[in-house]
Amino acid sequence: MRKTVIGVMGGCHVDDEAGKAAYELGRLVAENGWVLLNGGRATGGMDASARGAQEAGGLTVGVLFEDDREVASPHLDLVLPTGMGSARNIVNVLSSDVVVACPGSGGTMSEIAMALRFERRVVVLGFDPGAAFLDRCGRGVWSLADTPAEAIAQVKDWLERPMDT
Amino acid sequence: MRKTVIGVMGGCHVDDEAGKAAYELGRLVAENGWVLLNGGRATGGMDASARGAQEAGGLTVGVLFEDDREVASPHLDLVLPTGMGSARNIVNVLSSDVVVACPGSGGTMSEIAMALRFERRVVVLGFDPGAAFLDRCGRGVWSLADTPAEAIAQVKDWLERPMDT
Amino acid sequence: MRKTVIGVMGGCHVDDEAGKAAYELGRLVAENGWVLLNGGRATGGMDASARGAQEAGGLTVGVLFEDDREVASPHLDLVLPTGMGSARNIVNVLSSDVVVACPGSGGTMSEIAMALRFERRVVVLGFDPGAAFLDRCGRGVWSLADTPAEAIAQVKDWLERPMDT
Amino acid sequence: MRKTVIGVMGGCHVDDEAGKAAYELGRLVAENGWVLLNGGRATGGMDASARGAQEAGGLTVGVLFEDDREVASPHLDLVLPTGMGSARNIVNVLSSDVVVACPGSGGTMSEIAMALRFERRVVVLGFDPGAAFLDRCGRGVWSLADTPAEAIAQVKDWLERPMDT
Repeated sequence: MRKTVIGVMGGCHVDDEAGKAAYELGRLVAENGWVLLNGGRATGGMDASARGAQEAGGLTVGVLFEDDREVASPHLDLVLPTGMGSARNIVNVLSSDVVVACPGSGGTMSEIAMALRFERRVVVLGFDPGAAFLDRCGRGVWSLADTPAEAIAQVKDWLERPMDT
Repeated sequence: MRKTVIGVMGGCHVDDEAGKAAYELGRLVAENGWVLLNGGRATGGMDASARGAQEAGGLTVGVLFEDDREVASPHLDLVLPTGMGSARNIVNVLSSDVVVACPGSGGTMSEIAMALRFERRVVVLGFDPGAAFLDRCGRGVWSLADTPAEAIAQVKDWLERPMDT
Repeated sequence: MRKTVIGVMGGCHVDDEAGKAAYELGRLVAENGWVLLNGGRATGGMDASARGAQEAGGLTVGVLFEDDREVASPHLDLVLPTGMGSARNIVNVLSSDVVVACPGSGGTMSEIAMALRFERRVVVLGFDPGAAFLDRCGRGVWSLADTPAEAIAQVKDWLERPMDT
Repeated sequence: MRKTVIGVMGGCHVDDEAGKAAYELGRLVAENGWVLLNGGRATGGMDASARGAQEAGGLTVGVLFEDDREVASPHLDLVLPTGMGSARNIVNVLSSDVVVACPGSGGTMSEIAMALRFERRVVVLGFDPGAAFLDRCGRGVWSLADTPAEAIAQVKDWLERPMDT
């Protein structure tokens, strides 16, 4: 049976607090029995969320911007290098049942936009890009959250219901 | 010498007024001696902007979502089918000196986000996704415009200056 | 710790015998503790190899041509839709420690070519595209095999040695 | 009206003689009124074929592996950076009416394979990857040529006839 995948986007460059939140988010994803999928780098929030999930016994998957797995976080079970740069963003989005978007730049914003266009459900964690943007992106549903625990509660709620927005 | 390319994004589904604006935009791109690049379909704003540019003697390029050129606008000089769906959005963005974003959904929003992330200059024409989104996307610069003429004036102004934002 | 991934390419359209070989191949991949990665469809050799691996208790991953997981084999633990058509071939190749190429058409041939270009090791199972092609593709190493058991023996041998070709 | 595009693949690393052949090939493409499309780099056969075509007054298009147009040949009219590495090979293939494949490695082999899979016509110029490979790739047609003039004669012959293989 197909496993439920939570995509954690964003978080290339994070300070200490954001790193702790990413770790906590990863841990909660794993404790709920979901697979964590992220951008796979060995730095910042990507590394922290993978470590959190793996230490809690979860399965971790990274889909890399690069073609070389040397840059991958050591806390990933599966590493998928793509060498296709930002074009791989769509893979991360389409592979996720729910997307949790952490603070990021244009890459993360593009992932939110594509996720909503392809009817995914998106929790925006720790920032607010505005309804003028979010409402325009498509038929997916979105929600804002302040903490990893809040984000996970929203994910849980969504997964218990069929997607009919 | 490399030609200047103006990428016109968005506009899959347009009403009559938006269609006229897209045609006008294409015409102005061509009259300024720039190449028009868009998503290439034979419908809506894509078809209209290609027709406007081609009738004014400009070169028109379409980068298709599909792998089949049968869906391409007849007003394109060059048709690049990709078969890679939304992953081709990044090609449109990176190939453009300036991006003009017409009203669209998540696909268009993702193109704006990626354009700003890759330091492109973006005119948002006929709608406003909000500074909370636009300012977050990266190091490119953006501007809002209400009419094709206003958008083109902005493009012209930018092209006369080096990009240092 | 990163898991070892065996990419099984080809086999879209298979007869009964080829289907049995694909099932057997999947089973052997799983029994050796490796992850099986393939193109993910619910048909032919893709479905059969996923079923073989899953019934033997292995982890199965499918990277889809399509953007819609409805077409995925039910025997996959992880489904990554890409919507990027043939452009996703490179993901399958780069994600694999060793590639096993079953009979296929141009898509499979392109995967062999890219695998060798990116220094992957490739077992060609059940057909022979010729050394004039294989030797030209790059720095990876290749080997021909007649049966799944032979292919797996080669994979095992390679994995026990560092890649220095 | 859509222009006819001849895709020239391969030729990253070339000696003097191969460079002259690439230049000659570009020149002949332009003299026949066709657009030259290649991988766009400022080196080897890519640069030479673009220069040949441009000096003969043709339109030249480069679809780059990289996301940065700084690496592009100065002899291109249109530069499309993709940042998607080898995943962009499929764009080059699908955008071409006929593919001329010059000596190359796995990347070029993958382009031949995909071109034949997507029913393109392929001239293999200056080398022979073997019928065991070429015949397997799909429904396109292929031909071997020893010189640019021979390759162009074949392209011309094909373009005068509808594709029914």
